[in-house]
Amino acid sequence: MNNPREIIIAIDAMGGDLAPSAVINGAFQASKKIPKIKFIFFGNKMKITSLLKKKNLLNISEIVHTNQIITNDVKPTDALKKFRKSSMFQAIDSVKSGVSNAIVSGGNTGALMVISTVLMKTINGINRPAIATMFPTKKSETVMLDLGANVDCDEKNFLDFAIMGKVFSKTVLGIKKPKIGLLNIGSEILKGSEVVQLAAKRLSKEKNIDFHGFVEGNDIPMGIVDVVVTDGFTGNIALKIAEGTSELYTSYLKKTFNDNLYSKFAFIISLPVIKSLWNKVNPGKYNGAMFLGLNGIVVKSHGRSDADGFSNAISVAYDLCINNFNEKIISDIKKIFK
Amino acid sequence: MNNPREIIIAIDAMGGDLAPSAVINGAFQASKKIPKIKFIFFGNKMKITSLLKKKNLLNISEIVHTNQIITNDVKPTDALKKFRKSSMFQAIDSVKSGVSNAIVSGGNTGALMVISTVLMKTINGINRPAIATMFPTKKSETVMLDLGANVDCDEKNFLDFAIMGKVFSKTVLGIKKPKIGLLNIGSEILKGSEVVQLAAKRLSKEKNIDFHGFVEGNDIPMGIVDVVVTDGFTGNIALKIAEGTSELYTSYLKKTFNDNLYSKFAFIISLPVIKSLWNKVNPGKYNGAMFLGLNGIVVKSHGRSDADGFSNAISVAYDLCINNFNEKIISDIKKIFK
Repeated sequence: MNNPREIIIAIDAMGGDLAPSAVINGAFQASKKIPKIKFIFFGNKMKITSLLKKKNLLNISEIVHTNQIITNDVKPTDALKKFRKSSMFQAIDSVKSGVSNAIVSGGNTGALMVISTVLMKTINGINRPAIATMFPTKKSETVMLDLGANVDCDEKNFLDFAIMGKVFSKTVLGIKKPKIGLLNIGSEILKGSEVVQLAAKRLSKEKNIDFHGFVEGNDIPMGIVDVVVTDGFTGNIALKIAEGTSELYTSYLKKTFNDNLYSKFAFIISLPVIKSLWNKVNPGKYNGAMFLGLNGIVVKSHGRSDADGFSNAISVAYDLCINNFNEKIISDIKKIFK
Repeated sequence: MNNPREIIIAIDAMGGDLAPSAVINGAFQASKKIPKIKFIFFGNKMKITSLLKKKNLLNISEIVHTNQIITNDVKPTDALKKFRKSSMFQAIDSVKSGVSNAIVSGGNTGALMVISTVLMKTINGINRPAIATMFPTKKSETVMLDLGANVDCDEKNFLDFAIMGKVFSKTVLGIKKPKIGLLNIGSEILKGSEVVQLAAKRLSKEKNIDFHGFVEGNDIPMGIVDVVVTDGFTGNIALKIAEGTSELYTSYLKKTFNDNLYSKFAFIISLPVIKSLWNKVNPGKYNGAMFLGLNGIVVKSHGRSDADGFSNAISVAYDLCINNFNEKIISDIKKIFK
């Protein structure tokens, strides 16, 4: 494959709180940044057409009309069985069948994971897919995975996550030799669970991985490592605690600035900065989450994403495609298990 | 026992980065708020005496001279065996032998947990002690436990944590009917680990507990429940992620305010507010952590605590004593297992 080549992104136009308008505005923004991108939009043809016309996107877009929408209250197993004609299912199927290179959706996370896994299957050598996102840090960004796809993990899963995180860090973030950290508790009383100990032993043996060792929760925002590996239970809670804490901080900040006239003045000055801050500190909100380890690129945009969020999610999907992310994972796995 | 009665707090004067001065200044602050409090300080007699003189605290204080200090790099098992003459060990022993009502230390967390557990033993009916702290929320504060004493937990442990959290919320925070939440991931793909499912069943059966059900990471800062129960692995990581995120937010905030002249002006105005904010949002930093479930009150002040932090930790220890916290736990356990 030659670069820059044309990349086709399948877009679930009906997924997300502000769909389809925020989705299409996001696609518009992405198209301004990325020259050789094309879209296939899945959803209500009439609505999509009218929005695409406004943004003058019809020349780089196809539309596949779908009637069903998988809302957030649909169970993933039901989504798989009963929503085959939905915008999300059809968009995933378009990647599976090779028509599109990647799918971006702001819809039901569980449904997206289950349908993607069943349709695309995992990459040869990867036991289970993982959800990854970029955590903001003092230095720049850290990749963290898994964030909820796997509750119980064994050493092999942790190793898979480390490989996928490393390749992501290298290809998308441009880190030459990403440092991998394994999330653990630092207390000397007990040094974490047995599986974390086993995973550490396994990771430290692998020559193709620059294993830093254990990291603690507060090491992540400090940017101590480039990739943080953890099980989906811990990762999901870590992500949501970080999201909740930054929301809490923002709400305190607003309250504090409303305390008196002086601080109100300060607030008016700093409002745009505070808003940008929030997006910066709040992980997941900005770039969405990547489902790694599948035979296809799947990017989940945050359900509450605006056009900026969708644009960023599309950019991430594009970067994964253009940098041959999956091919590089396959090659890394071959090196490790040769 | 009649209230208000005299409460004697054993103070590890040598524990914490700013010990002994911040410790004694904290005790001074606490003595201004609490009339019937007395202290026994364990540590270097000369240093302590000179600091106590300055603060005019000699009349309500005793000093027990100790030579050994358990630094943060000492392993808990070594602390137990080789540091019997340390300020921390002697302070704990003073509670065990009934001379003091509670101990406050800003020293090595693991050592404090191991020595306290071995010396005091767990309350009859409680299988394992837990580390608890107060998480700041949009509404006020939420008690969260365990934060690192137990990596692997069974349903009984979760039930113990729920009882202890409930009693803490009632007696110290004055919540009449505390709502208990069990930390889990909300994804529909997998509904958390097996033990969390079993714990939920067990908790929902208990009439003496107002079980709200599962909560997610972002529900904690929103104040959805009064008590959050989790295993020590998840809890420790949650706590440290929250600490790290608020530190990151503060550092971004400072950087943002330094961007231009206007925002620098805004920063000067809001600096004291931002500092108070940081303490408010950063869990653990302000009040320290309580070791619950032992036959004695143990409060761990943050290692980096200043006098305010120590004063708050002493207040928490006092509140636990004066409200007969342990007696109430024993009575609750009897009700549940009668």
